[in-house]
Order: sequence, then structure tokens, then C-alpha cells
Amino acid sequence: MSELPAKEQAFFEWYNEVLERSGITDKRYPIKGMNVWTPFGQKTSSLLDRLIRSRIEPLLYEEVNFPTLIPETEFRKEGDHIKGFDEQVYWVTHGGRTELDVKLALRPTSETAMYPMFALWVRSHKDLPLRVYQIVSVFRYETKTTRPFIRVREIHFFEGHTAHLDGPRAEEQVRADIGSFDEISRALCLPHLRVRRPDWDKFPGAHYSIAFDLPLGGSKTLQIGTVHYYRDNFARAYGIGYEDAQGNRQLPHQTTYGISERILGAVIALHGDEKGLVLPTIIAPIQVVVIPIMGKEPAEGLVEHAQGLVQALTDAGLRARLDASDERPGAKYYAWELKGVALRIEVGRKELQARTVTLVNRLGVRSTLDVDELVSGVRSALADFDQALWTRGLNALMSRLHRVAPGEKLDPEKVNVIGWCGQEKCGKDVENTAGLSLLGTLEDATHFDGLPSPVCHFCGNSSGAVWALAARPL
Amino acid sequence: MSELPAKEQAFFEWYNEVLERSGITDKRYPIKGMNVWTPFGQKTSSLLDRLIRSRIEPLLYEEVNFPTLIPETEFRKEGDHIKGFDEQVYWVTHGGRTELDVKLALRPTSETAMYPMFALWVRSHKDLPLRVYQIVSVFRYETKTTRPFIRVREIHFFEGHTAHLDGPRAEEQVRADIGSFDEISRALCLPHLRVRRPDWDKFPGAHYSIAFDLPLGGSKTLQIGTVHYYRDNFARAYGIGYEDAQGNRQLPHQTTYGISERILGAVIALHGDEKGLVLPTIIAPIQVVVIPIMGKEPAEGLVEHAQGLVQALTDAGLRARLDASDERPGAKYYAWELKGVALRIEVGRKELQARTVTLVNRLGVRSTLDVDELVSGVRSALADFDQALWTRGLNALMSRLHRVAPGEKLDPEKVNVIGWCGQEKCGKDVENTAGLSLLGTLEDATHFDGLPSPVCHFCGNSSGAVWALAARPL
Repeated sequence: MSELPAKEQAFFEWYNEVLERSGITDKRYPIKGMNVWTPFGQKTSSLLDRLIRSRIEPLLYEEVNFPTLIPETEFRKEGDHIKGFDEQVYWVTHGGRTELDVKLALRPTSETAMYPMFALWVRSHKDLPLRVYQIVSVFRYETKTTRPFIRVREIHFFEGHTAHLDGPRAEEQVRADIGSFDEISRALCLPHLRVRRPDWDKFPGAHYSIAFDLPLGGSKTLQIGTVHYYRDNFARAYGIGYEDAQGNRQLPHQTTYGISERILGAVIALHGDEKGLVLPTIIAPIQVVVIPIMGKEPAEGLVEHAQGLVQALTDAGLRARLDASDERPGAKYYAWELKGVALRIEVGRKELQARTVTLVNRLGVRSTLDVDELVSGVRSALADFDQALWTRGLNALMSRLHRVAPGEKLDPEKVNVIGWCGQEKCGKDVENTAGLSLLGTLEDATHFDGLPSPVCHFCGNSSGAVWALAARPL
Repeated sequence: MSELPAKEQAFFEWYNEVLERSGITDKRYPIKGMNVWTPFGQKTSSLLDRLIRSRIEPLLYEEVNFPTLIPETEFRKEGDHIKGFDEQVYWVTHGGRTELDVKLALRPTSETAMYPMFALWVRSHKDLPLRVYQIVSVFRYETKTTRPFIRVREIHFFEGHTAHLDGPRAEEQVRADIGSFDEISRALCLPHLRVRRPDWDKFPGAHYSIAFDLPLGGSKTLQIGTVHYYRDNFARAYGIGYEDAQGNRQLPHQTTYGISERILGAVIALHGDEKGLVLPTIIAPIQVVVIPIMGKEPAEGLVEHAQGLVQALTDAGLRARLDASDERPGAKYYAWELKGVALRIEVGRKELQARTVTLVNRLGVRSTLDVDELVSGVRSALADFDQALWTRGLNALMSRLHRVAPGEKLDPEKVNVIGWCGQEKCGKDVENTAGLSLLGTLEDATHFDGLPSPVCHFCGNSSGAVWALAARPL
């Protein structure tokens, strides 16, 4: 089969082609932007769900599942929220041949489904904090170009919703959520930028929104997760109140936390290469493939030996698979590389006799291992592989940023780090001068060494100025 | 709190009340028939999904996830199918303010979503068998009275879909699916009847339908699962074909297999009692609750000891929980019984000193156990509990059946076992004479000792007559 398109030169051609060839999704379903989760894609998605659950449940979130449909009457209660989604909502108008009295929205997100129930569940300060999450499909009638995982019309979505006694406790939750996202993104080897969105770009109904942005090359960025603080905006609209210890009625403060299937798109986009997918081990349906090298006269017992290696790895909790098909070794390497398998184990006559195996990881690093150290050696090779992905990703992130010096022009081919005074007028100047958008202000400068004090790139003011990012969000 | 309504006398009052008090669902969501999966209900449902997966994946089904929406054009391709669902489909007609060119159905089941893709996936005989499943929400605009789990408008649904070279292989799949359902229902302690639906009541588009029916008391039955053989009906409508080894184009034969959240309704309906839920251990979020009996002067170290017991059980993979709250023991017993916890462990001063614990199972059986045998003793008590549920269920099943002797009248308060010649006219006579429905013919007589040769209850013919069931399906 021909080479994949060059990723750096023709990103979306590469992206579409790698998705199709690897079989991680099927976009031939007869509705644009609604794709089929194939067995391979579904396994990857289930592993992602498992990762998210493992980092969410220690924060005492409990899983729930709310109806997919929301009555229009409930949906319209928070004014900013409905305005934000008005153009994007799918509406159910008929049941059978009967026109419904009240139209039903396919949830684009679940605030307006959940909060009428929160109003019933929360009565006393003893009912708080309330922390629930669900992993469900949400729906958005996208009019922009759709892309599998990145911009779709049915979205596989994790959403956490909390309610607290007051603002400080809610903001503590925001910090805990950010901490959990750091763990999730670390496991997926996704270094990213933590950005507070400008007021004009926050989530509809939010008091503020913190987003996680991944630079993808050039000035492109992809939002891969968000945490929002709602203050009491929704509590007010949905009548969620509680009686405090003194018997006074109070409004709880709320937060949400969202991660969509887009994070899989980010993994594919960041790590993939001209050979195909490169999957971090935590979400790889197959982490290790064992290939017996048969040659012209296969060594006796070779396939059984290879099967034994797979068994040992499986018993140790690793996701390993034997490929003893009749294909040439080269064709097998090609096929498993395309699917992003982290580690290939080759074993032929020579290795069988020496009681060793040859390891080749998806980045091309080769090594030899004693069979007696198989499990520990493979574990450590997988950890090294993830570490290498993280480091490579971090280098890519840094190389895509451009710190704009005072007086210097914004680089339309980079993610620009600029000073900003916080005024909307100056923020909007980004769009006028460089065709970029103001992503927001930098919440975390972990990746930056000693940033100086910022000065607004537009008005030159230093009072209140903070570091901000100008880029082209996908 | 007051007693629950008597289950035998007022089944649905009892059912609604036990759901509300136990908190396993919340039906106050503002759309009739769409309920909220609370943390308790969602955990139960996840355990059910896990059970289903564990019995399906050995049959080589692979998990997929298809879009929720189906274009009307695809939906209408199989004539019987659309007729069967015409009155029950929710239709999406608008995206934002835009009227859609093609209306979109919220899937009531996924044949018409999957089979256009099967037509792309299946090309050669080497692509068969194809076996996929998904666990998703499906939607039906029910006009009958809705009941949580039993008849809802958004349904949590497992659906398996297969395609095979020919009919015999497809029917082998039907038998394998039935075998897996036997295992699932055994784990849920649900003895049931296996029934082939009459032609006028089979699944729309099916060649035949085999259903699993649970007698619920009186003449009421509940369908808790189905397996369908489609022959090539859908393959023909959706253009699914393959090239056989000789290069000829053939149509694959298809089957489906479905289990919905209704099976949870069946568990609740069959096993529950006047104290509340009774959950088989495999789907119980909490299997064991440990209650330290504090008394007026709690023994020193009692709570820590109880905590240690919980830890030991948890480490052994059991779902155990400590209740060391300030409530009276009686109030705790009441609360955990309501939630259907299989086993309560009581430990007070006396037990602490004797290094024993008192076990009380949800059916009221008490025993004493040495602490040194805690894990094995609890495991065996849980197995005994499930066995007792199964036996009790089987006794209930048998007591609800009435074998109708020739010339005898049908009992409108039982599930009647009658001879039937197979003619529609005679089958429909059931409805005319007793207000019951013909559920179909008995596929499996495991629960019956030596049934004699049947004679049609209506026309007296013995030629072609088989045993059939007449009841009132919910």
C-alpha cells in the first residue's frame, strides 16, 4: 500500500487517511459527522473511559445517567446558555405521527437536564457537596466542516457536574478537576496549555471557563478539555437552593468538567506519524504484538513458544496478541505499526535458542531481552515508550510557541504568547491584525522558564497585564 | 417509615413504592417514561452490563457503537420493520432553526443503522461470520402506561447483531445466544420460559422470534430477552451480499439478540418483598454490609475491627461496606434491607471477644462464622443466597403455571399451558375466550416433567399440535 500523506505538509489529508487505513473509525455512515465506532475504535474509547473513571472516582464523583432528551421549557431557563446553543440543537418534534406538545432537545450538554433534578435532590447543606458524572452521547448540529473525533455531530462525552455550599468550595473543586485532568493528559502523553478563556468566549452560562489547549502545528490549537465555574448562575435559573445550618436559604455554587472524544483526536493528531497511529499504552487495545519469524524452515516449537510469551504477558495484565498468520514479517510490521501498537516482539530461531526476544517499539527503538525477564522488561519498555511520547510531545509544544517581544509582530504560523491588559478591545485586536483568536490567559506557566512581567501587546499597558495566547483554534 | 404496600395484592403500588424508597431510579424527570439512573441504579446497571459482556464476548461478539440517529431513507428500507415501529419512532426534524432535508429517527433498535454499514463491511465469505454488539440507549414513543425499567421511552439496551454464510450457521448462533441467556438469567436468579412467538407477534422483519418470558404473578408475564432469526430478509433490503468460494454472490443470514433494562425490572419484580429490593449478588452494588453494634458502651476497637472485616472482604474482591453511623441498628437494618443488600454482618462486644461474626442474609437466614473463615464463609453465604433466590423463583414460576386439561377452561389468573395446532384462528381464540394472549409455543420443557402429547385446545386436532402458553404480557 502507498505511503501516508506527509503529516506536516498536509495535516488533514494525513489525518483522514490514517483514520481510514487503521480502521479506528468508519465515517461512511449516512449522516455527515456521525461516525461508527468500529471494534478497534470502541475498545480504545472504552479504555479512555476507564482512564477517566479511574481519575474521577477518587474525587468522589458518582456515576449517573440522565435522559438524552430535554424539554424545550427546561432548556430555555438559563438565558445565556440557550443563546450559546440555539443554532446547534437537534430538535425532536414528533413521536410516531403525533406532533409533541413540547419540543425535545437532544442534549448538547446536560446542565438543563440535570439541574431540575438537582433542585429536587438538594434541600439541606447536608446534601452538599453533590458530585455526579456521566459518560454519554451529546449532539450538536455542526455547520462547520466535520472531522472524526475532532468535530462531530454525535459526541462521546464525559461530563462532571458538582454543587457546593459556596464559591470557595466550588473553586476548590475546579482545582481538583484540573489536577485530575493533568493526570489523564499525562497518561495520554498530551502536554498542553491551561488557558482561562476571555469573557466573550466562555461557556454559555459560566462565570469563567478554563480550557486545556493542545498546539497541533502552525497556529492551530485543539481544545481537549474544560472546567467551568458557574457561580450560582444555574442554581438561580433552576431553583436549586439549600437551607444552611442557620436555617437560611442559600444558592449552591456549581462547576462542570468536560472531556470529549476529541481527546482521542488529539492523541492521534499529536502522536501519529507517516507509518500510522501511535497510541499511548494506556488506551491501546493491543500494547504488544508477538511475531514469530518463521523463515523458510521454521524452528521447531517456535509458534508454541511465541504463544507462551503472549500468555505470560496476558497473565501479567498486559494486552498482548500473537500474530502467527502466513503474511511476510514486513507486512505484519506494517499492519501493526499502522494500528499504533507500542511494542513488537520478534522471536525467530536465533532468539529461541538464545532464550531472548527482540523488542522494537513504535518509535523504532530496538533492544534485546532475556525471556526470563520478559514481563518486567516489557513493562519497562512500555513505560519508556510512554515517556518518549511525552517528551517528544513537550518538545513539539515548545517549538510551536512564539513569545512575542514588545513591538514584534505576531507570527501567524505559531501559537503566540503575548501580554494582554485584559480589555476586550485589545483582545479583539488580535483578530484584526493577525487573523488569530485570543485563546485566553495562561493559567499555568509550568512549561515556561522565567516569563518576564507582561506588557499589553496592543495598548502597551502593564497594569493588570497577563500572559495570553493568540492562535487559531480548530 | 410505613410498611411497603403488599406485593401480592397491589403489585404496581408496591413496585412504584419500592423503586422510590430504595432510590434505584428517579422518575421525576420532566419527560414521562424517561427516568434518571441515580448513582445506585447506575452502579446496578453497570454490573448488569458487565455480566452481559462476560457472557457475550466468549461467543466472539465484538463491541461497537453506532450513531443514535438513522436517516428516514435508511429506516424505511425493510417494509415490515418500519410498519412495526411506525407509531413508536421519535423524529428529529430540525437542526438549530434549520429544517432537515431528511428526517432522522432516534433508533428504536439498530438494524437499520447497522445494515447499511454491514453492506460495506461484508464483501467475501472471509468476512463472515460477523458478530457485533452494542450497549446503548434506544427510544420508543410509548403510548401505554410507562413503568420504570419495564416500559420506558428511553431504554438501556444490549443488542447483538450477526451475519453468517447460511441459515444453519445463523441458527447455530441462535442456539449459542440462547445458551448465553441461560447463563445470564441463571446469574440473575431468573427462571423463565423460552417461547417461540407466533408469526403475528414476531419481531418486525424477523423470520422467527424466540423470547424469554417471566411469569410475574396472576396471568402477567414479562418478556426479558429475545433472539431473532432474520433469514436474509434484511440482507436483501440493505444489499448485504458476499462472494462465496466459487465466486457467486450470496446473501448472508442474520440474527439478533436483545436484552434491555427491563431485565432489572424483572429482578426487582420477582425477588423484591415487603421489606424492599432483593438483589442477586452479581448485580448488587453492595453485597455485604458490616454493622458494628455499639450498644451503650461500645467495646474498645469495635469500629476498627469492623473496618478490618470490610477491608478483608474488599481485598478478596467482594463489594462490602461499613455502616458505622450513629443510627440505631434497627434503622440500619431497615435501610440496607430496602436496598436489597444480600448479607448483613453484625459484630458487637460478644462477637468481638469470641472472634466470630453474625451473618443475616436478606431472606432472614442467620448464622455464625469464625473471623478466621470470614472470606470463604461470606463467599459461601452469598452463593447460598443466590441459590435460595433461584429456588424460590423456580417455585414461584411453577405455581403460576396452569396446565389446561382437554375440555377444561383457561384460568384467567394463571399462565396457561395449552395444546395448540399452530393455526392463527385457534391462537386468536385465546384472546376471544379468555382475554389472554397466545405468548407462543414452548421451546424448552426443562421445567416440566413428562408433558403428554398435546391436542389443540380449540379445534381438538393433535396433528402438528405443540405446547403453547396463554397469558397477559405486560
